[in-house]
This record gives sequence, structure tokens and C-alpha cells, in this order.
Amino acid sequence: MAHIDLGVDESLYPGITGPLRFRPETAGPLNRLAEILLRAPHSLPPGERELIAAYVSGLNGCEFCCDSHSAIAAAQLEDGMALVREVLSDLDGAPIPGKLRALLRIAAAVRESGRKVTTVLVDEARAEGATDVEIHDTVLIAAAFSMYNRYVDGLGTLVPQDPPFYAETAKRILRNGYLGSTPSSPADC
Amino acid sequence: MAHIDLGVDESLYPGITGPLRFRPETAGPLNRLAEILLRAPHSLPPGERELIAAYVSGLNGCEFCCDSHSAIAAAQLEDGMALVREVLSDLDGAPIPGKLRALLRIAAAVRESGRKVTTVLVDEARAEGATDVEIHDTVLIAAAFSMYNRYVDGLGTLVPQDPPFYAETAKRILRNGYLGSTPSSPADC
Repeated sequence: MAHIDLGVDESLYPGITGPLRFRPETAGPLNRLAEILLRAPHSLPPGERELIAAYVSGLNGCEFCCDSHSAIAAAQLEDGMALVREVLSDLDGAPIPGKLRALLRIAAAVRESGRKVTTVLVDEARAEGATDVEIHDTVLIAAAFSMYNRYVDGLGTLVPQDPPFYAETAKRILRNGYLGSTPSSPADC
Repeated sequence: MAHIDLGVDESLYPGITGPLRFRPETAGPLNRLAEILLRAPHSLPPGERELIAAYVSGLNGCEFCCDSHSAIAAAQLEDGMALVREVLSDLDGAPIPGKLRALLRIAAAVRESGRKVTTVLVDEARAEGATDVEIHDTVLIAAAFSMYNRYVDGLGTLVPQDPPFYAETAKRILRNGYLGSTPSSPADC
């Protein structure tokens, strides 16, 4: 049971979907921010941006966001869930490009505190070819998931325990995006 | 100097205003979220919501956001900056209503981790008269400033050291709101 009455059947609207329905005024900008950061045209593929979201959510211990964005990342990465699991468990050893690894290290620093981002971390990403927009968006994705994670867990929302739920969520997001979830439709985010 | 080239004179666009200009696509939902959470009609007065933002920013050590939202809160609270300073330095002893104190305690928990919000904290707020919307918005304000703080500090933006800057920012926000800042106008957020 969530900490407040979300006005929905939580088994149908788990995780962030209940609060998004409860407060459609704030759902608008929250969904739009996710759509721009994770799906809009970009030099970083959507699967890599979703991987940053999943990685930060995992470090924050937010099970709903980590499992959701892991599934959405896996659906868009060539090596699928196996690669996502490697990144989440061993960033240093995971078989990913150097630029993505350097950006994930910046994301981990942001998650801890914005003040943990050093010029060394930024220079390493730049040496691997990261652009200013890629560095900016990595910082903002990590910051935004430091928000979404706290929103989901701070309200004590329900976390589905069945993997098929997250695979279905991934299919829906790939089909409809984050703006496709209207306040009256279930579990779209 | 910020970690990336924001394309602006940072002394004119310090703190969050440089990144908002650098990436107008994400500035839209970021500004809209602040406008809804902090200024839209609500049972919690704007000064109290700004106080939650300032308190969380202070705990996160984000000087730009703490000083900005302290000034905006002070401009809207009867006891002004003296009260803001008391809350920031001693929440337990500050002369504020019980409901606001209970909501600030929830905000402090969210800042640490969403999973730190307990039913005890929520029940205490409810016993002081807090509604579901007030609890929801407190959680989301605290979560959102866990994002804004990381965004501002993670990009290493400039922090103005003169108090008049923050007083001017407060006047501008009270006059124009968070949506009044267009990507082409300086220091509006």
C-alpha cells in the first residue's frame, strides 16, 4: 500500500504510474522530460540513455525504475539484458565502448552528489569523444532519475515482482513513448 | 567555469540559468515542473513550498539553489529571511506550524532516499492535518530538488557570491514565475 490514497487499484497502476494518475498536472512535465532525455533524436542511442537511467536507478536501490529501464534498455541494445546485467554488476569490466563507460561514471558521481563530478571525469569522457550535449544530458538523466527514484520510493508505491510486467512495459514504451501514457490509461510509464 | 561550454557569459547566466539556455528542450519541462510545484494554486502557501525547496537544497549543499529559494521563500513568508534561516539551521526549534515541520521531515527523508520515508513520518504529517496532495507534493518537491541540485552542481555552474543577486532573482520569480524565463532572457530561474 502506498503512503497516500492514489485513487487507483495499485496492482493495475504500480510504481510511478499511480502517482502520475493521482496528479496529472505534474505528470505532464515529468513524462515530457523523460521523453526528451530518453527517446528524442540524439547522438547517444536510446538504449544507451535508458542504460544510464537503469544504472542510476540500480545504484539508488529503486527496484521499480531499475527493472523498468533495464527492460527498456535491453529491448534497444544489441546484447540485450545480458549486457545490462553486466553493466549493473561490473561497470569496469562490462564490454561497452569507452565513451559510454566514461558517461556512466559521470552519472554515478551525479547520483551521489552533483559536487562529485570532477574535471577529471569530464575530461575522460571528452577524451573518449563525448560532446558537450552528451555530457549535459548524462548529468541531467542521472539527476532526473535521482528524482524519479525518490518519487516512486518516497510514496511507497507497489513494485511488481514478475519479470513479464517489465517486458510488457518496455514494449509499451517502445510503441507509445512516455507521452503516450495518458492519466486514464494503465501502467504506461 | 562550468564543465561544458554553455554558450553564454556565465556571470550573466549563473547557476541553473546557463544550462536552461544551453538546452531549451529540457528547460521547458524543468521550468513547468517548478511552476506547478512551487507557484500554482495550492493549500500550501507558495512561501512554504519554496521553504521546502530551500531546505532540501541546503541539506544537499547546493549553494545556488539554497540561496535562490531561500530568498524566494523569504519574500513570501511573514517572518522573512530570519524564519528561513531558523528552519535551515534548526528544524526542531524553528517557530513554524506542526504540519509544515512534519512535511519538512518527510522532505529530509526523501532527500536522503525515497526508502527513508516511513509510515510514522507520514502518519505524523497526517495527524497535523496534512492532506494526500500535500504529502504527495512534498515528496515530489524534495525529489525534484534532488534533481535540480545535482543538475546545477553536476555541471559545475557559477555561484554568485553577492546577496543582492538572490534578492533580485526572488523579485523576478515573484513577478514573472518560472515560465517567465525564456531561453533568451538572463538569470530568471
